[in-house]
Amino acid sequence: MRHGGVLPQVDIVYETWGRISPAKDNVVLLVTGLSPGAHARSSAGDPTPGWWEEMVGPGQAIDTELFHVLCVNSLGSCHGSTGPASVDPAGERYRLRFPVLTIEDIATAAHAALERLGITRLRAVVGPSLGGMTALAYAILFPEDVRDLITISSATRATSFATAIRSLQRECIRSDPEWRGGDYPPDGGPETGLRLARKLGLITYRSAREWRERFGRERITGASPAEMFGPEFEVEAYLEMHARKFAGAFDANCYLYLSRAMDLFDVAEHGGSVEAGLGRIRADRTLVIGVETDFLFPIDQQEEIARILAGAGRTVSMVRLPSIQGHDSFLVDMDRFCPVIGEFLRRA
Amino acid sequence: MRHGGVLPQVDIVYETWGRISPAKDNVVLLVTGLSPGAHARSSAGDPTPGWWEEMVGPGQAIDTELFHVLCVNSLGSCHGSTGPASVDPAGERYRLRFPVLTIEDIATAAHAALERLGITRLRAVVGPSLGGMTALAYAILFPEDVRDLITISSATRATSFATAIRSLQRECIRSDPEWRGGDYPPDGGPETGLRLARKLGLITYRSAREWRERFGRERITGASPAEMFGPEFEVEAYLEMHARKFAGAFDANCYLYLSRAMDLFDVAEHGGSVEAGLGRIRADRTLVIGVETDFLFPIDQQEEIARILAGAGRTVSMVRLPSIQGHDSFLVDMDRFCPVIGEFLRRA
Repeated sequence: MRHGGVLPQVDIVYETWGRISPAKDNVVLLVTGLSPGAHARSSAGDPTPGWWEEMVGPGQAIDTELFHVLCVNSLGSCHGSTGPASVDPAGERYRLRFPVLTIEDIATAAHAALERLGITRLRAVVGPSLGGMTALAYAILFPEDVRDLITISSATRATSFATAIRSLQRECIRSDPEWRGGDYPPDGGPETGLRLARKLGLITYRSAREWRERFGRERITGASPAEMFGPEFEVEAYLEMHARKFAGAFDANCYLYLSRAMDLFDVAEHGGSVEAGLGRIRADRTLVIGVETDFLFPIDQQEEIARILAGAGRTVSMVRLPSIQGHDSFLVDMDRFCPVIGEFLRRA
Repeated sequence: MRHGGVLPQVDIVYETWGRISPAKDNVVLLVTGLSPGAHARSSAGDPTPGWWEEMVGPGQAIDTELFHVLCVNSLGSCHGSTGPASVDPAGERYRLRFPVLTIEDIATAAHAALERLGITRLRAVVGPSLGGMTALAYAILFPEDVRDLITISSATRATSFATAIRSLQRECIRSDPEWRGGDYPPDGGPETGLRLARKLGLITYRSAREWRERFGRERITGASPAEMFGPEFEVEAYLEMHARKFAGAFDANCYLYLSRAMDLFDVAEHGGSVEAGLGRIRADRTLVIGVETDFLFPIDQQEEIARILAGAGRTVSMVRLPSIQGHDSFLVDMDRFCPVIGEFLRRA
């Protein structure tokens, strides 16, 4: 691991869609945001909708009739790949004995998994949010293996604003007495802390404009001012519903590790400056997508990636989208995202 | 109280600076944001700097050689005025038995205090943030008593984004086991929850741009990645220091009541629409100040106040300030705020 420590044995869970070509040169690797697993798209084996259901599929933007699409669950996550909630070879859960996790470790683990499958040069690496950082790290660490690169709402390093938000999310979890220094039982854990952290995430993943249009000042039916501090506005009910869902499905320690990995990431560690780091990338073409209402990974961070790559002689397309759903737009504003990604991949 | 309940006895703490004229027609009322008390400015009796030290004073923007400046501590607060931490006539702390608090109640309590002092018509009412809402409520409820009105980074009602933030702050407090449903001992309380709530406040009071310039990716000296989840970036140390200071000085239940009052406030309750509500204001002149980097009380909410008041025939000055300190600018960017307020008051 980048900051020391060794994982003696690692599982990396992945899913695939579409046939691999005999030359294994049609692989599109998807690396994900903090919370999703490898299930990007429904399949015969698992018909539940994936996290990028409308993006990936036959005839869709990431076309499974052309590409062998492979999505990995990040190292450190809790959706099958080895992470703090996994059991070590001695039969004990890692918990906080899991070594410091970095974005580079996530990229390296994905690379090792592909190596095992005999896949080296990728047709494209695509990543949004944390996954965009992973895609950048992958292209920096394994420059010869990435033909096209797509980063979405990502960054070469976090803003101090984003770090402040994530630090507070982690503190919400660590402050919950049920966290117990990370040693909570497998069926328990800091549900309240995780719920609070997720609410803060939800608040920062969207935009004030979207919320004004969606919720305005709508009240929850039956809510009364006389009731002290219960939820009374629709926006509060929305946050509660989504936060509950998440807290029941995500491991708190995994959340801490993945969240911190985003704050530790700094492209400048690869050669002494952001320019030097991005200068290692050898992709034929890069597509950088940013959203104007994203204040967690703001548009100027996307433009920085595009500007520096172009300055280093790379072929870069920068697309600014006016989506109102903020950082989360890549998950919901498919009418804007699908054409941009589909066209870029077709143009090759 | 607006939503029911009675306070049989109320203290309203205030401080004054400058002499009152024989006609009592030179009074400038200051109503405050959520956390400050009545100590806007140092004095012989209390030489510690006030929350608006540079704004108020002899020869300063709110000139105590011309005006009798009077700052009240809000009803519901914990800096001397009656609030949830106060003891009721039976000798019990109110805690959650304190009735629902609204911005209108805060304005009405301030008005009652001034009445006792024989002060009716005010030369000006000035309020930032929550205080701006209080100033609006004062001018709506007591239209004949307000000659000039100054609102700063305020709103006719909260955005759902701001409500989401404040709802989460309240939940941080309520989720702390030490809150004990509001019944914590006077020397205890949900220090952790209050600290988390304050950190979220601090994050939303400033701007991402200011933090980038102030903190960048500066690390705390001696912080090591090997240390799991301790603070490692300067921005985290900054949040911790300020949140600790606040948590030691503010009552958790008072925070809950004042925070919620901001979410309940809606000028449209006065006549059926925001236009009807603001239409009750009779001020000779209104100054509306907004800050471009404020995302908690965004600039378009300031422009709404100015536009509607102008549409109702009032004389309005709208000033957009390019301060980078976000919502908190009125406390720190004195080079921009003092001239605007000083000139407006002098022009009369």
